[in-house]
Amino acid sequence: MKRYGAIEAGGTKFVCAAGTGPEDLTPPARFETSNTDPRQTIKQVVAWLKENGPLAAVGVGCFGPLDLHSGAITTTPKLAWQNFPLKTELQDALGVPVAVDTDVNVAGLGEHVWGAARGLDTYLYLTVGTGIGGGGMARGHLLHGKQHPEMGHLLLPRHPQEPGGFDGVCPWHKNCLEGLAAGPAVEARWGFPAYELPPDHLAWRLEAHYLAAALVNFICTLSPQKIILGGGVMDQAHLFPMVRTRVADLMNGYVELPEIVPPEQRWCGVLGAIALGQQTH
Amino acid sequence: MKRYGAIEAGGTKFVCAAGTGPEDLTPPARFETSNTDPRQTIKQVVAWLKENGPLAAVGVGCFGPLDLHSGAITTTPKLAWQNFPLKTELQDALGVPVAVDTDVNVAGLGEHVWGAARGLDTYLYLTVGTGIGGGGMARGHLLHGKQHPEMGHLLLPRHPQEPGGFDGVCPWHKNCLEGLAAGPAVEARWGFPAYELPPDHLAWRLEAHYLAAALVNFICTLSPQKIILGGGVMDQAHLFPMVRTRVADLMNGYVELPEIVPPEQRWCGVLGAIALGQQTH
Repeated sequence: MKRYGAIEAGGTKFVCAAGTGPEDLTPPARFETSNTDPRQTIKQVVAWLKENGPLAAVGVGCFGPLDLHSGAITTTPKLAWQNFPLKTELQDALGVPVAVDTDVNVAGLGEHVWGAARGLDTYLYLTVGTGIGGGGMARGHLLHGKQHPEMGHLLLPRHPQEPGGFDGVCPWHKNCLEGLAAGPAVEARWGFPAYELPPDHLAWRLEAHYLAAALVNFICTLSPQKIILGGGVMDQAHLFPMVRTRVADLMNGYVELPEIVPPEQRWCGVLGAIALGQQTH
Repeated sequence: MKRYGAIEAGGTKFVCAAGTGPEDLTPPARFETSNTDPRQTIKQVVAWLKENGPLAAVGVGCFGPLDLHSGAITTTPKLAWQNFPLKTELQDALGVPVAVDTDVNVAGLGEHVWGAARGLDTYLYLTVGTGIGGGGMARGHLLHGKQHPEMGHLLLPRHPQEPGGFDGVCPWHKNCLEGLAAGPAVEARWGFPAYELPPDHLAWRLEAHYLAAALVNFICTLSPQKIILGGGVMDQAHLFPMVRTRVADLMNGYVELPEIVPPEQRWCGVLGAIALGQQTH
């Protein structure tokens, strides 16, 4: 059975693994994302993958924005990584086919093959953490278009109890989903990180509102069969029922709602990268 | 060359045509949408299509919501049409394959085959009139999922100059896109229909804002290569540059924007129905 390499390329760390699926996966290995020299990170990743080969192909889920045609990172605020040709660098160093897609499309693919989106053809995967991003499939194809989705940047109606003067923290849009509901927005608004705020704090009502308003908009746009919510903020288990209730309130019976669930696979990111590699070769 | 029948099934009229494409299309015929007896409308439509046959298949773009598996109309506020099995009724009466999709997916398909979306695989078609709806394709497939998109019902941030006390007219969501920006919302807010308001009226700044905020959200969700805006409200030509400018302001350079254009085909609805019929047979 052919083995595949997996890279989950994040802004603070690269996670690598190799194998064929959840039942046959090396323990994931972590390498710091260099802030000054991408090739330093790539060198460590390549060395690890070569040690864990032979590999038929390698899949990569990467922070964005990406050029999906060339597999390059484009206008990231991580300056050293701007315009870094990730796919060709890895391919040249590894000598096997490399497929690159967004971190969220790839994590969603992991859930599609081995988790909560099994058997579906139209679903969304969102991560809510230090940033907010989303990906998924429409009718069996990963969401690509002119570029790729940027689901963290939806513009949403404010919650009526939003504290006066809080204006969102997104450098581009201030008040978009990420600017209002990612971890740094919660901390900027209340002065404490999300995990320190008690479950009955108003913070969670606002958090549920913004996530739910975004989900209503995703449902109206794509009609997903299921929505998977991952990421650090969603580790607060009390948030799921609050989001589901708020989605139902906001949609007000207009369309039948999809299930809203956590990921089933702890390692859906690297598993999706394995699956992406498999599709390549 | 095989000929196909086309039905654009709307809430006030059914428009029928037959042919093979824009260069070979009968003049469209109109039949009133009965408010009391759907079969009366269907009888007229069937008679017209039979006179204009023989037809290899018939495509239908229909008002919703629809069950796309069975081709039935479901929970429409037009009570006589609730749960009407449009596809099977037409198929039984005509004796040829009938394909049914949403009016907006079908109009978008007309633009995909013969108009502004030619050669693209991911695009949106929106109509802005007495209601607002949207459809299109993601990677070459019409947008279907759990059901179909309901793009008129996005939840959006209010414009700062929104008149105090105006609370939107959507019976389900009040403040959604349709409740704030469809023709009846404009008339309810200002006391005049859109076409009577001069181009420098604040009404148009608000209209451009809500449409643009929705487009930003569609772009962030689907990354379309192009967005086509049709419908009566968009006949106000001064609205296009205002929408484009507002989209650019709201997106603030975060992603490269798709073109935002009117439809190229005056009859994209019936042409899309011809194309849908062709795909069936």
